[in-house]
Amino acid sequence: MLILGLDPGSTRVGYWFIQKNKNGLTLIKSGLLKVASKEKHQRLIEIEKHLLQLIKKNKPDLVAMEKLFFMKNLKTAMEVAQSRGVLTLTITKYKIPLLEFSPSEIKIAVTGYGMADKKAVAKMVSLILKTKEIKGPDDVTDAIATAITAANYN
Amino acid sequence: MLILGLDPGSTRVGYWFIQKNKNGLTLIKSGLLKVASKEKHQRLIEIEKHLLQLIKKNKPDLVAMEKLFFMKNLKTAMEVAQSRGVLTLTITKYKIPLLEFSPSEIKIAVTGYGMADKKAVAKMVSLILKTKEIKGPDDVTDAIATAITAANYN
Repeated sequence: MLILGLDPGSTRVGYWFIQKNKNGLTLIKSGLLKVASKEKHQRLIEIEKHLLQLIKKNKPDLVAMEKLFFMKNLKTAMEVAQSRGVLTLTITKYKIPLLEFSPSEIKIAVTGYGMADKKAVAKMVSLILKTKEIKGPDDVTDAIATAITAANYN
Repeated sequence: MLILGLDPGSTRVGYWFIQKNKNGLTLIKSGLLKVASKEKHQRLIEIEKHLLQLIKKNKPDLVAMEKLFFMKNLKTAMEVAQSRGVLTLTITKYKIPLLEFSPSEIKIAVTGYGMADKKAVAKMVSLILKTKEIKGPDDVTDAIATAITAANYN
């Protein structure tokens, strides 16, 4: 089973593919879908296009995404939610199951502790995937943790 | 010029078409796009489908939508924002200009007063469009006021 973890944003979307088999979870690849347009309406078109390419090329069996909770900046939160709407539409159109988890559900699934910090999450992700410590932007690490959480549910 | 005013929601979207010509603004028609699905991911697919039908049938020259501000219930706000993302994507894909206004911009455009209540907005909408007092759900009246605001900007 190939699981795609997504971390939605308005100008970039972190993604991570992990494979689940009888030996456990394996890292496949990761990256960021970067949006070039400075015009906010056009950004949604780019996000749909990038996600479609990713889905068609890799054919994930399941997608996992973090639920959006309160953000300090309401304008940013609304833009991220709009981007999330476009991602959800695209995934659902392709009939790929989509699981959503709250930040604390993800932290509990990965570290056993709902208030764990980003460093602890990154360390546990490395141990679970038997890989070196995860480097890269926070949103990529969050997407991996979300994918691991989905793997535990299936 | 045919202007489509939209009032986004997660399970229903209010719409209103007004025509702008040298004699002023005229009501064309209004309604609600109602979403039947109880599954929140499927709802986004329905919203895209309904809006596409409305656009293809009526060919608006311009779409106007209210900006989403703080809502008491954050979960509801996020769902409305996701719906809004799908509406924005669809409108932008069809290369129809989309104007967005804050609630106070709309109230000022229609009544001259940024804190006007819904009743005052409805009354002014009736006067501007030279029609009987607007009846119907609040979200439909909001969509008309948004369309009138867009007409003033063009």
